[in-house]
Amino acid sequence: MQPDSAALAALSPEQARLMIRQGEWQKPTAGLCAGYTQANLAILPKEWAFDFLLFCQRNPKPCPLLDVTDAGSAIPKMVAPKADLRTDIPKYRIYQHGELTDEVTSLTELWQDDWVGFLLGCSFTFEHPLLAEGIPVRHIESGKNVPMYISSLPCQDAGPFGGTMVVSMRPMTAAQAIRAVQITSRFPSVHGAPVHIGDPAEIGILDIYKPDFGDAVEVKPGEVPVFWACGVTPQAVAIQSRIPLMVTHAPGHMLICDVKDSAYAVF
Amino acid sequence: MQPDSAALAALSPEQARLMIRQGEWQKPTAGLCAGYTQANLAILPKEWAFDFLLFCQRNPKPCPLLDVTDAGSAIPKMVAPKADLRTDIPKYRIYQHGELTDEVTSLTELWQDDWVGFLLGCSFTFEHPLLAEGIPVRHIESGKNVPMYISSLPCQDAGPFGGTMVVSMRPMTAAQAIRAVQITSRFPSVHGAPVHIGDPAEIGILDIYKPDFGDAVEVKPGEVPVFWACGVTPQAVAIQSRIPLMVTHAPGHMLICDVKDSAYAVF
Repeated sequence: MQPDSAALAALSPEQARLMIRQGEWQKPTAGLCAGYTQANLAILPKEWAFDFLLFCQRNPKPCPLLDVTDAGSAIPKMVAPKADLRTDIPKYRIYQHGELTDEVTSLTELWQDDWVGFLLGCSFTFEHPLLAEGIPVRHIESGKNVPMYISSLPCQDAGPFGGTMVVSMRPMTAAQAIRAVQITSRFPSVHGAPVHIGDPAEIGILDIYKPDFGDAVEVKPGEVPVFWACGVTPQAVAIQSRIPLMVTHAPGHMLICDVKDSAYAVF
Repeated sequence: MQPDSAALAALSPEQARLMIRQGEWQKPTAGLCAGYTQANLAILPKEWAFDFLLFCQRNPKPCPLLDVTDAGSAIPKMVAPKADLRTDIPKYRIYQHGELTDEVTSLTELWQDDWVGFLLGCSFTFEHPLLAEGIPVRHIESGKNVPMYISSLPCQDAGPFGGTMVVSMRPMTAAQAIRAVQITSRFPSVHGAPVHIGDPAEIGILDIYKPDFGDAVEVKPGEVPVFWACGVTPQAVAIQSRIPLMVTHAPGHMLICDVKDSAYAVF
């Protein structure tokens, strides 16, 4: 019997990861373990890890690093010391030379001694505080994925990694946008304040109803689009660089951390 | 003729760096270019750079990275794109296997193709806003260096780099301490909020009048000591690891950046 949504929200991170590890949950992780941070995953061989780490350090808004594992270790010591990156994510994607070549539910067979795991913050962490303050989050209201766009905002290069920023968009009134700036400024290590408010063309977005990733959502009369740096950026940039091997989580299939969302608020 | 202090404070970063580059200023940089960020420097060969970068990423409060150069490049593109790390710092220290072996005023002859420069935030950036809000900064009032202590607060290890956190201390009233938490929380990328308030013994400091670095300052009746993570931590940790080579700025002889202190405030 599948537990109901209240029971799923009430699971501890350890319980949820065990369920995933045992193959009992192979779906997206939204709704599991309310209040706990979920993280994006990127795994690269050590040869590429320095430049990828440098790329994240130079671009902290789209690349909010929460944890980086020691080479060869699958244990994210800072965010979930009992987790195992080989088994505790419901679905993984394997990219070779920039092409998606496989989707798997475990990395136990594939794991290599020189792999470094990067865990990056995700917008769930600031969407909960927005909702708690009464700011609407249109894609959640509509049961859709957040709309994401390849903007013209440049990232700072690092080695082979470079490109423009992927941004996510949430429409709201101007008054709500001002409050949303305040709320998300509290989370500088998880995307932080918006990168743009208003005219999409100013950041190279030609049609707000044609996102590059995710789903289009309605922008109602009297609303402005508000854009945040998006955690898809580092993966997109790594894929574009056509490095020989990268492993990521499948979209929406995240690592559930032991850290609470609220721990990332600076005040 | 030496310019007076108002003239020194009014210099542009480019003017000050030119003066330093031409050997006309070989003293500490406090008081130069008011409002502009000054940064600590650590240079390591690329072989050690990944683990050092990882150490900084894992310990953001004591190791606030403002910029990391490409291997072999002496140009800190993000904080001062026209600066040259080989010439624009008044005095450098050379450490070999953890021992201070030389002090020089230029790296032009020594610079290697595999050197990576790390620029780290310094407490000047949050002391100015404290002073502007009327919070006393005792060591500045007394014309001393800030007192610094090796605490028992553990850092997260990365490769050969590990140890405990160096903290700086500023005494103030409880009401001022509360305001100081608010003010410095605005600067998460430059040490951020304090790491401890009150009893020094709780963080392994046995005698507040015997700092490990800098000068002792008076804690007056009715005042509490307030401790911040200190940017000396990463250099201390790198020296303790006895890596074959590291170059740093000489204490107080900083890189003057083109970025204003206020740019590091998140709100």
